Amino acid sequence: MSKAKFAVVLSGCGVYDGAEIHEAVLTLLAVDRGGASYQCFAPDVAQMHVVNHLTGQPSDESRNVLVEAARIARGAIKPLSELNAADFDAVLFPGGFGAAKNLCTFAVAGPDCTVNPDAEAAIKAFHAAGKPIGALCISPALVAKVLGKVTVTIGSDEGTAQAVEKTGATHVVASHGQTVIDAANKVVTTPCYMLDATISQIDDGARAVVADILKMLA
Amino acid sequence: MSKAKFAVVLSGCGVYDGAEIHEAVLTLLAVDRGGASYQCFAPDVAQMHVVNHLTGQPSDESRNVLVEAARIARGAIKPLSELNAADFDAVLFPGGFGAAKNLCTFAVAGPDCTVNPDAEAAIKAFHAAGKPIGALCISPALVAKVLGKVTVTIGSDEGTAQAVEKTGATHVVASHGQTVIDAANKVVTTPCYMLDATISQIDDGARAVVADILKMLA
Repeated sequence: MSKAKFAVVLSGCGVYDGAEIHEAVLTLLAVDRGGASYQCFAPDVAQMHVVNHLTGQPSDESRNVLVEAARIARGAIKPLSELNAADFDAVLFPGGFGAAKNLCTFAVAGPDCTVNPDAEAAIKAFHAAGKPIGALCISPALVAKVLGKVTVTIGSDEGTAQAVEKTGATHVVASHGQTVIDAANKVVTTPCYMLDATISQIDDGARAVVADILKMLA
Repeated sequence: MSKAKFAVVLSGCGVYDGAEIHEAVLTLLAVDRGGASYQCFAPDVAQMHVVNHLTGQPSDESRNVLVEAARIARGAIKPLSELNAADFDAVLFPGGFGAAKNLCTFAVAGPDCTVNPDAEAAIKAFHAAGKPIGALCISPALVAKVLGKVTVTIGSDEGTAQAVEKTGATHVVASHGQTVIDAANKVVTTPCYMLDATISQIDDGARAVVADILKMLA
């Protein structure tokens, strides 16, 4: 079999207003270690806001999701509007508040959130093609909002799990490095930093999601 | 033996104007996987400049090294001025242009560069205490500028190696995942993205540096 190709969708650069950096990097590492290739994507839109990660407070700056995500991708990134599911075997969504602020608005609107049109199109296209979708941390909420009847985990936070279930999804509690696999929908999710975690536990989670998807593709 | 404690010095967030993100994250992972602990630090100073990582061009923004590095550290970071070598067993410098733009000015001034006073103090303090110093990518140029007679690698780029040797240091060619160990000075270096590398090769390099230092501490 030829090398599996993963699309990785980033949502900025930094846990509080973008992609969670450890989850993003360790997702890319897991793909490369798994003998597969990756291409990063992000929406070419303004971030919901910019958070000073030292103080935790919003700043008055304005930043672009694609431009900031390019930091994680070392410049090798494309606009999410150019993601064609036909070109890839699977898609991965690392977490961070960016997934719930920039790819959708779950962080502020919960189950009534809106979804970035390109993120929605990507999830629907991979799902319709029967291609696996992996999501870490809070990103399963995005996948749940788009697909509705799907089984996912965001860890064990009750309030968040209830909000996810209001999208029509089923939530299953999971712990460090564990995945929840919805085999019918080919959706694989893991909690990562939705739990209090070490960086090694994030590595465990990212590797588990990628390994499960590689098994689906085998 | 109690858990080894590493100080990790970051220089922003993004390869072209700050800490190289893969190197920084995989350094933290290597420390945690090695059974040690880490605390991140960065200087509380303005970045030399801000580079749009999508286009590679400088922008007219202004950003602070400590505030941006806090993105990689998820907020758990301290000003470099507060780094006390007595509190740690070793210090690590991931690479990225930030190490050669914000911690020193090697990227623009080569061997005649100036060094951030807190970075210089940190390197001298660990060296004087006989505690290991690890440096990835271009960071060995910073260590060479501060310590002078030390043996390091920045990979195999001839121009950069010659500039490093003009600081008084000796340069040794090294490849992916290989370290150069200066046992007398307890300085361990590896090329990482100073070579054209995959993310797995960065992981190899970070793990090799941390493993070599843990052996020194054993």
